[in-house]
Amino acid sequence: MTSRGQFITFEGTEGVGKSTQLANAADTLERLGIDYIVTREPGGTPMAEAIRELLLAPREEPVNDMTELLLMFAARAQHLHTRILPELKAGRWVLCDRFTDATFAYQGGGRGVPAERIAQLESLVQGDFRPDQIILLDAPVETGMTRARHRGELDRFEQEAVAFFERIRQTYLKRAAADPGRYHLVDAAQPLETVSRDVVRLIQGLARTA
Amino acid sequence: MTSRGQFITFEGTEGVGKSTQLANAADTLERLGIDYIVTREPGGTPMAEAIRELLLAPREEPVNDMTELLLMFAARAQHLHTRILPELKAGRWVLCDRFTDATFAYQGGGRGVPAERIAQLESLVQGDFRPDQIILLDAPVETGMTRARHRGELDRFEQEAVAFFERIRQTYLKRAAADPGRYHLVDAAQPLETVSRDVVRLIQGLARTA
Repeated sequence: MTSRGQFITFEGTEGVGKSTQLANAADTLERLGIDYIVTREPGGTPMAEAIRELLLAPREEPVNDMTELLLMFAARAQHLHTRILPELKAGRWVLCDRFTDATFAYQGGGRGVPAERIAQLESLVQGDFRPDQIILLDAPVETGMTRARHRGELDRFEQEAVAFFERIRQTYLKRAAADPGRYHLVDAAQPLETVSRDVVRLIQGLARTA
Repeated sequence: MTSRGQFITFEGTEGVGKSTQLANAADTLERLGIDYIVTREPGGTPMAEAIRELLLAPREEPVNDMTELLLMFAARAQHLHTRILPELKAGRWVLCDRFTDATFAYQGGGRGVPAERIAQLESLVQGDFRPDQIILLDAPVETGMTRARHRGELDRFEQEAVAFFERIRQTYLKRAAADPGRYHLVDAAQPLETVSRDVVRLIQGLARTA
């Protein structure tokens, strides 16, 4: 019997180590013999990746907030219906770098788009579908920004001010506090080995109860 | 004193002569000494045109209906807020090849997306903003199709195409009947000179009352 896979998303501001911990979580599932895929938002299918390129490309024309929000959800609709849902149905776990919580944090908390508008689009695109578990890697904004800067050129989002990322971090923390059963808060300011150990234990725990 | 320009959209199924009549309407405004721009949807700004390319590019991956709908409104949000509204505010008239009525007709009537979903996105993106006048060029679907083809039984694909465009036409006609103050129905099955004369008179009438 194939049971539905678990949908686990990784959230956090720039430079908190999402990619490292996603790889770490994937290794853990590998060792446990659980089938999985790793994917990301915006993106995850060729069409959704094309939308991602549109979103991230630096351009002279100022991008309207509602345009940005609708492009995010257009990419999400494509990713969700043509990839995530079929994979989960086939019994595979889906590890996803960002999902709708990032939209609430970045477009909502960061850019000031009212949360009700985002919630309206969330219902329109996802119905009642939500991540099974959300791993929030949290660190002070300055810590993450320093790491992101060392990686090279900053994209349009990364060029935004520290205050912008502080609003994003606070939105994530508020959402985590409001839904402790789904959110797992990981202190990403700890030494890397400690963060990695926390994530491995989390995934092992989820695999036992899934 | 500069008064707000008029927002006039041109709607209709494929091949009814929208481009010809848009050019005709533009000539009429030119002769009347009224400032105007001609634009189109999806598109109208570099960002919105990039979204249009994404929408129209042939691809192997099937595009989810909700993705298509959200991309349409993403392009619309960009076009409306960065071009249409500033032009109208500056007193220029905006002649636009298709707008939200086309979304109700094509994605709604044609593809079967529930009208309430489209209306929800319309409110989200436009608030109460609607075209001042909608010029609907209407002709029987069969007229255009049989013109370019020998008489005979339609194959399965052609029958589907006819049924698809018939649903689109009927949606346009229903919307026109429900809002006769805004919609101007032009019989596009008439000889070209008659259609052109009707459109010139319409624009002249709008210029007198604007």
